[in-house]
Amino acid sequence: MRSWLALPGLANAAAKHFYNSLVASRFYAPDAREEGELVALPTDEAQHLIRVLRLSTGASVRVFNGRGDEFVATVEKTTKDEACVLVGTRRHAAREANVAVTLAQAVLKGDKMDDVVRDAVMMGVAAIQPVITTRTEVSLATLERARKRERWERIAIASTKQCGRAVVPRILEPVTFDALAPTLAPLTLRATVLMFAEPGVSRDVLPLGALDLKPSPEATIIIGPEGGWTPEEVQAGLQACRVVTLGGRTLRADVMAVVALSALFTTWKEF
Amino acid sequence: MRSWLALPGLANAAAKHFYNSLVASRFYAPDAREEGELVALPTDEAQHLIRVLRLSTGASVRVFNGRGDEFVATVEKTTKDEACVLVGTRRHAAREANVAVTLAQAVLKGDKMDDVVRDAVMMGVAAIQPVITTRTEVSLATLERARKRERWERIAIASTKQCGRAVVPRILEPVTFDALAPTLAPLTLRATVLMFAEPGVSRDVLPLGALDLKPSPEATIIIGPEGGWTPEEVQAGLQACRVVTLGGRTLRADVMAVVALSALFTTWKEF
Repeated sequence: MRSWLALPGLANAAAKHFYNSLVASRFYAPDAREEGELVALPTDEAQHLIRVLRLSTGASVRVFNGRGDEFVATVEKTTKDEACVLVGTRRHAAREANVAVTLAQAVLKGDKMDDVVRDAVMMGVAAIQPVITTRTEVSLATLERARKRERWERIAIASTKQCGRAVVPRILEPVTFDALAPTLAPLTLRATVLMFAEPGVSRDVLPLGALDLKPSPEATIIIGPEGGWTPEEVQAGLQACRVVTLGGRTLRADVMAVVALSALFTTWKEF
Repeated sequence: MRSWLALPGLANAAAKHFYNSLVASRFYAPDAREEGELVALPTDEAQHLIRVLRLSTGASVRVFNGRGDEFVATVEKTTKDEACVLVGTRRHAAREANVAVTLAQAVLKGDKMDDVVRDAVMMGVAAIQPVITTRTEVSLATLERARKRERWERIAIASTKQCGRAVVPRILEPVTFDALAPTLAPLTLRATVLMFAEPGVSRDVLPLGALDLKPSPEATIIIGPEGGWTPEEVQAGLQACRVVTLGGRTLRADVMAVVALSALFTTWKEF
């Protein structure tokens, strides 16, 4: 439990050291594969190492390759913008969830979607599928123009660094709900597929606790925008997969993913 | 699922109407007790009714008294700053949780604590106990001077309006962890008491899923600050109650309460 990105001005030096040792010195090094390699860090990571943490040759760090491997490493060379590390012994990263969960999240307004990406990565999702629904206020073209997918990928890497995972979840190409919906019924053959809706949206919607959910290797959870699903979208969901609610209260759209992931990971004994 | 406080510019008029009908027209009227009464709204609520929503005499609204009662009501009189409503028939509010959970939350920095109060109310807590720990960066005196408790009470009311509850959770007087700790062991006689800690903080800390948690009428969950618990605080927790972790990943302090509440409500079949 600690703050994200900014170094908290901790009450004592020991805590600060603990924080640095655990969080600040992990770097994303996608080229790291095995001990003994000399690998260059991506530009963002090199700048974090050189300019923010002011580390130099000989510093001991950790690197993870985003595919589950984590290593001790030593800074071997730094220039103004580049950093190379010597990959050392392999070490354990935070355990990945047994169920590979894809979060299909309706794109939220402003920087709310950034927060959802950050939190979903921390919670342990395997992938995030941005979705444009009827009541989403941006278009696929706007997301493309604003290079939102690249932005979310950077946020996913930053959150992976913070939470101790060695796997960077994939940010999938945004799709419309109309394009996603026909893929859901086939997906249910191998994955748990759940669409989360507000209480009272339809009589056919069940509370999550009413389902007998066994862990499956894969799961997809689908979460709507601030304005909720349209009745047509709920109908499409009911025909393709299970539509569920979480309690009788109206939950904020930007917190729903964390609530749903916590509920599912509890149900599947991941916690 | 929808945004909080600000009216979202929804994609269509029907959605906007749906939003208004469900959320915007609920008012906190602590004096409402039964049908037929004429009650004045508190100043904040009256201003929301008059200036933000621009409702006038004859408008149909809903009121809740913060203690679980909700009614249909009619605006009877408005002046520049005051609004009176005629209390109508009783109606169902969102169901309260069967377990009355007190969230003992270390005060977080900046407006993070505001977000935790807002989200914990939405999740369904019965009370929030702000706690000053060793690594909390503010003092009781600072909280008092900044009138933080009054601020959190206003946030609790606003969140109650949004999420559909008719019970406004209490914001308790902030205490230090040192003052709270000795009350925990006696509390375990009647309540489930769980302190949440980071993974790896002590060998005696168990994953939440390892406990066989039966629902009790009351529960208290204790959540630390950005910098984490000190080893002494973890020891005090281990002696007084159960100290647990949620998964192997490091969770952000400001999301921990929502994750823990979702996990417990799932375990207790509240969802």
